[in-house]
Amino acid sequence: MPYSQLIEKMLEGDKRACARLITAVENDSDEAERIMGDIYRYTGNAHIIGITGPPGAGKSTLTDKIVKELIREGKKAGVIAVDPTSPYSGGSILGDRIRMQDLALNPNVFIRSMGTRGYLGGLSKHTKNALKVLDAGGYDYIIIETVGVGQSEVDIVKIADTVLMVMVPGLGDDIQSIKAGIMEIGDIFAINKSDLPGADRTALEVNMMLDLNPDTDRRPPVLMVTAVKNEGIVELVNQIKEHFIYLKESGRFEVRRKNNLKMELVELVEEELRKIVISHAEDENKLNDEVIEIYNKNKNVYEVRDELIRGMGTHLHRG
Amino acid sequence: MPYSQLIEKMLEGDKRACARLITAVENDSDEAERIMGDIYRYTGNAHIIGITGPPGAGKSTLTDKIVKELIREGKKAGVIAVDPTSPYSGGSILGDRIRMQDLALNPNVFIRSMGTRGYLGGLSKHTKNALKVLDAGGYDYIIIETVGVGQSEVDIVKIADTVLMVMVPGLGDDIQSIKAGIMEIGDIFAINKSDLPGADRTALEVNMMLDLNPDTDRRPPVLMVTAVKNEGIVELVNQIKEHFIYLKESGRFEVRRKNNLKMELVELVEEELRKIVISHAEDENKLNDEVIEIYNKNKNVYEVRDELIRGMGTHLHRG
Repeated sequence: MPYSQLIEKMLEGDKRACARLITAVENDSDEAERIMGDIYRYTGNAHIIGITGPPGAGKSTLTDKIVKELIREGKKAGVIAVDPTSPYSGGSILGDRIRMQDLALNPNVFIRSMGTRGYLGGLSKHTKNALKVLDAGGYDYIIIETVGVGQSEVDIVKIADTVLMVMVPGLGDDIQSIKAGIMEIGDIFAINKSDLPGADRTALEVNMMLDLNPDTDRRPPVLMVTAVKNEGIVELVNQIKEHFIYLKESGRFEVRRKNNLKMELVELVEEELRKIVISHAEDENKLNDEVIEIYNKNKNVYEVRDELIRGMGTHLHRG
Repeated sequence: MPYSQLIEKMLEGDKRACARLITAVENDSDEAERIMGDIYRYTGNAHIIGITGPPGAGKSTLTDKIVKELIREGKKAGVIAVDPTSPYSGGSILGDRIRMQDLALNPNVFIRSMGTRGYLGGLSKHTKNALKVLDAGGYDYIIIETVGVGQSEVDIVKIADTVLMVMVPGLGDDIQSIKAGIMEIGDIFAINKSDLPGADRTALEVNMMLDLNPDTDRRPPVLMVTAVKNEGIVELVNQIKEHFIYLKESGRFEVRRKNNLKMELVELVEEELRKIVISHAEDENKLNDEVIEIYNKNKNVYEVRDELIRGMGTHLHRG
């Protein structure tokens, strides 16, 4: 089926067409780019929610409950579960995902697991493309759930409208060991497994951390939840919806989206330039010859870079 | 002191000059680049050893023992300990480093802790620069030790001549949960804390994994060590030295170094182009205007990218 038909079907709400388009844009083909260019005008409506936090915080269970609450009034929700490429799993990721299988059968819910594929920075371009397909497909809420192993948290901020930071008592991590920069990206904090001892203390530590860096516009709420018992979920979802209203009314939504677009544009230009560099240098087998010159200490790598840049200018101007 | 004098002192073996040069190249200044260009001709002699593995494997203690063994015959060793930017420390990183304080006082040993600074990909350019300074400074062995949280392991392969993968029994990670790609990067495997139960089983699992992907040229050795008791260290260090001889005699050393240079060159060119893109677009305030056009759905991001690339061609050609 030509992709234009797939796009039509997706716009009509066809889940399978959605899935096939996401598969189609999971690579770097020209077709992927045409699809992304065509669907762009339908994007921009979804509320993108990033869910992150340390391993063991129970994020998958919490996501499952949040989605069930979000769709109660006939809304559609997509979930992109990002599996990290960390080789040290620290538990079965597959086991976590099994909890969401009943949701996957719901016609208003779309669930996709994606690896980061070693993409520098944690959240791959393919994940972002998948997100836009779901946005264009009319999903009201799109949840990006990651395991939180470093660069992913920061990337979620760039993508998400609302970042939910899931903490859990007694993991052995002092709040102090969590860098202040990570606390700053949370729009809402949820202490999960709050029926465990130490929950109040964890909430206190989070609040103290927030006191250190007060955002004069909005104080992120710190909520107690127990996902497996379905406790605190309604209030949490209300706060998520409230945050979106806040973003729109304060103008921050537009500012964030424009910043995202800017970064995406720069990344795309860099990627295109990278391709030009590689093809320019290797067409003439120049790159390998230059590397030999550097290896033999006849030139250094900065001199060669400058030569290549000057050469590229001529190349771009001609082509 | 002008950097040319610092370089002279470093070449004479002055540890403090070394430290000051590393500090000087930890940023993106023009001076940093001049220093790197000037010292390049003195690099290429060190044996670079990457040490990685899951948290809790006892890498810091093992590194300490390895260094003590390496310097026994009057050699010099540098250690760059890379602290990840993961916000979830999983234990005190500072505590680990304290074990190496007696070594830091040894005139033939240089120890430096560096953060990854969120650099995409795990091992920052600044880490690589520091490594080259130590290489130019005459250090026979340079150890890069990371915590192993994903992308770092792969980056170590690109940098190191010899990759030592440190495993430990009973962490709860099945070998199966460790992706095959990570097993492929180990040149030597050490089962540390081998006095614990399960050590033989872990060694067996590693060997089974290696059986699946036999390298017809060389089978990585799997060694049992107990770092805190100083057991197995001499054999481990012998294997490390043997591997370096193997790399030189087989020609793989030259191939790897040339590949590293090629990647470095491409990265430098990309970085320079990124700067040109940003300055080109923002000088004319063009980028922000284009972003507004995209936000208002008058253009899509691919169209704007193509316009910018064409515009850059003109700019590079003129400049």
